[in-house]
Amino acid sequence: MITSDQLNQLKAICGGENFSINDEIRAENASDETEDLVFLPDAVCFPKTVDQVSAILRYCNEQLIPVTTRGAGTGLSGGALPVNGGIVLAMKHFNRIIEIDERNLQATVEPGVITQVFQEAVIEKGLYYPPDPSSRGSSLIGGNLAHCSGGPRAVKYGVTRDYVLDLEVVLANGEVIRTGARVLKNSTGYNLTQLLVGSEGTLGVITKVVFKLIPYPPLNKVLLAPFRAAGDACLAVSAIFRAGVVPSALEFMERDAIDWTLKFRDDISLNIGAEEQAHLLVEVDGNEEDEMMRQVEKIVAVLEAHNCMDIYFAESEAQKTDLWKLRRSVAEAVKSNSVYKEEDTVVPRAELPVLLEAVKKTGEKYGFRSVCYGHAGDGNLHVNIIRGDLSEDAWKNEVPKGIREIFSLVVSLGGTLSGEHGIGLVQQPYMEIAFSEQQLELMRGIKRVFDPKNILNPGKIFTNIHAQA
Amino acid sequence: MITSDQLNQLKAICGGENFSINDEIRAENASDETEDLVFLPDAVCFPKTVDQVSAILRYCNEQLIPVTTRGAGTGLSGGALPVNGGIVLAMKHFNRIIEIDERNLQATVEPGVITQVFQEAVIEKGLYYPPDPSSRGSSLIGGNLAHCSGGPRAVKYGVTRDYVLDLEVVLANGEVIRTGARVLKNSTGYNLTQLLVGSEGTLGVITKVVFKLIPYPPLNKVLLAPFRAAGDACLAVSAIFRAGVVPSALEFMERDAIDWTLKFRDDISLNIGAEEQAHLLVEVDGNEEDEMMRQVEKIVAVLEAHNCMDIYFAESEAQKTDLWKLRRSVAEAVKSNSVYKEEDTVVPRAELPVLLEAVKKTGEKYGFRSVCYGHAGDGNLHVNIIRGDLSEDAWKNEVPKGIREIFSLVVSLGGTLSGEHGIGLVQQPYMEIAFSEQQLELMRGIKRVFDPKNILNPGKIFTNIHAQA
Repeated sequence: MITSDQLNQLKAICGGENFSINDEIRAENASDETEDLVFLPDAVCFPKTVDQVSAILRYCNEQLIPVTTRGAGTGLSGGALPVNGGIVLAMKHFNRIIEIDERNLQATVEPGVITQVFQEAVIEKGLYYPPDPSSRGSSLIGGNLAHCSGGPRAVKYGVTRDYVLDLEVVLANGEVIRTGARVLKNSTGYNLTQLLVGSEGTLGVITKVVFKLIPYPPLNKVLLAPFRAAGDACLAVSAIFRAGVVPSALEFMERDAIDWTLKFRDDISLNIGAEEQAHLLVEVDGNEEDEMMRQVEKIVAVLEAHNCMDIYFAESEAQKTDLWKLRRSVAEAVKSNSVYKEEDTVVPRAELPVLLEAVKKTGEKYGFRSVCYGHAGDGNLHVNIIRGDLSEDAWKNEVPKGIREIFSLVVSLGGTLSGEHGIGLVQQPYMEIAFSEQQLELMRGIKRVFDPKNILNPGKIFTNIHAQA
Repeated sequence: MITSDQLNQLKAICGGENFSINDEIRAENASDETEDLVFLPDAVCFPKTVDQVSAILRYCNEQLIPVTTRGAGTGLSGGALPVNGGIVLAMKHFNRIIEIDERNLQATVEPGVITQVFQEAVIEKGLYYPPDPSSRGSSLIGGNLAHCSGGPRAVKYGVTRDYVLDLEVVLANGEVIRTGARVLKNSTGYNLTQLLVGSEGTLGVITKVVFKLIPYPPLNKVLLAPFRAAGDACLAVSAIFRAGVVPSALEFMERDAIDWTLKFRDDISLNIGAEEQAHLLVEVDGNEEDEMMRQVEKIVAVLEAHNCMDIYFAESEAQKTDLWKLRRSVAEAVKSNSVYKEEDTVVPRAELPVLLEAVKKTGEKYGFRSVCYGHAGDGNLHVNIIRGDLSEDAWKNEVPKGIREIFSLVVSLGGTLSGEHGIGLVQQPYMEIAFSEQQLELMRGIKRVFDPKNILNPGKIFTNIHAQA
């Protein structure tokens, strides 16, 4: 337990206005978007400078106080939950876009910048930062880095890690390092940058990031293809790439996902026919109308060959916005209906039909309902397992058995536990399905190198760090 | 020193036909393409199976015998040199393309496959594996993984690491692990895959790799733009991207590079005017003639705005091949002229003119001549420092001072020591220019986790591992 003397010391480091033990503030930092989990921190620090972060970590490392770094709290795996108490390090004051370097197509950003704010700032310069998780309107760059967020555009443009050139990181002992350089290619020593990205706040606290940017593709086409059979939609996904087209988004939604979302948001007008059981939302982007049209034609040919029904082409910007609003609101819509567990399964994309069918069968076996949707082009299927009126016992004991079966299948298909949400707290019990003890021990060894006293987000990703205090 | 009993044990593990202490074989495995360095191994193993690799490493780990893994020996930083003797683990028998998975656009390959052989095998299926170091006709996939090779197409398509989804790796203690999964997105635990890529054989021995592939862009346009001033050529590089075009190659060659290469290869017909001091080789690729033409037009406009002279457009496949032969033969041509040190500098691309000018000034100061060329679109400039008739003292003592100054400038510009060749042996003395002691100690810590007895490629990347035996 943290002592009042320790709290006073931390308050002195942060300054009174950047430190709180207020119940309301602690409660605001006690949960994220994962199920309905709540873990109260002892205190919340809102540092404003790298020096403050460094001093906080140095002190917590001396005193063995757990430090859980927090972005916007939009995570879906419990990565930001302070499961062992201690302090939450809330990075919201690190909200500056330090530089957009138009000569080099790079940007230097602090981790507390909202993803969409950053995206829009670079688009104004004709540049593009593609990673766009559905939560981009509220999620922070730091959280995107922690879990290596993806989003719909990853299928063409890659995930967060693909844009990170360099990080400024405060280590557990308070030392400040850079991990890389402002370059597009780097074969200089071990790649600490890519090790830090996706490490969920367990290896260091990111205080600055240098991203590469690309020219912004100004045009796009968006269509929604309905299918009578979800399996056909999944089969079409793989075939689109095989036809030589790389769409800028290729999203799958099953019927429930759309129905629940349309009920949740009455500002989207869309008629869904009774027979439509699944949909693919497809976008192509580019610089040239003609070229995009030819890509759309190829895609339409593939969709029709897979028994799609009448395709809806978004003609106006408003119609495009509606389709994206629909897709981006699914998680929120499901949440408004019921507590749910979100599994972030990912498989080689051609295995999607197998996965989808298995999810449904497993649900029947264990008595749970699921809503499935996600980034089908990447083989990344979000499986929302609905609590509904399941008993406490079923939710806590039976559902995890089903999840275990699903993950076992996923791994046997060449896939893994998480495509973009991370392991955090809730996927930990399944780690040994994906990894051998040797692999886990290597990861724990790396953790001990960076954070020998296990103060950084302890209790996340894996258990049993065996801290060398 | 390795004992005859140890040699016999290793021979028993490998089988007699896969093991050699023959002087000629040892000599063949004693050098690579780095300057004129020679380090004889005590023995060479040519394992054929993962089990053999595992047994060899287990034994060498017990007996503290250094193991230097070797691909084709085309490296330019001394990564494959057995500087502490012991055994060379020559991976040439691991030469199978195990699977080209057309459903998922993936391929599973052994590390002893020649890069170009693999590229051509997937192109036959309409697929593309873009990383193409100049040595691709002889370099092995394993070496490309060890140093994270790039090549001309990296500017549009990324480097080796961007295509690696999963690795099979034998650890120092003989254990076999997988690092990732066959998926395009992976937020499941620490990214061991990206840690292994570029680790130059110091963390494990790669025995299998799963690559992602992309659809093959069947068309391309190639042009060669001459400039009176090398600085103008460098300025044009950054401006091309700013114009919203991402070429599939954007290579810089200064006059000497072309002259020496044309002298070296009499099968390339190209007339270089007396005033031409530098050239940009530009390629755009795609699926559509019209779209590529519009990209070429944009590029030409930028080149002309930067005072280029008459542009040479390759009209036929033969002409394109000639231009690429020219570019890909520069290193060999320089080598045929003189021993040289190759520095693999990389900076933010807009800083290229500053770098190039500083290289020349530094050469004047320390009395060396340099030939510069490389992947300008990535800010990756290969600086070949020519030994010519420099004295032993100048070569060993004065030139490194100049290199140190160049690297210091590179780092101050936001760049780093190596873009694609790795640190290996020869760039080690400069590591502390790019990294703080804290960064180096993190890397050494990772090394100790993977290879506590420091048997894997000891003496590479950094010194002073402080092995915990």
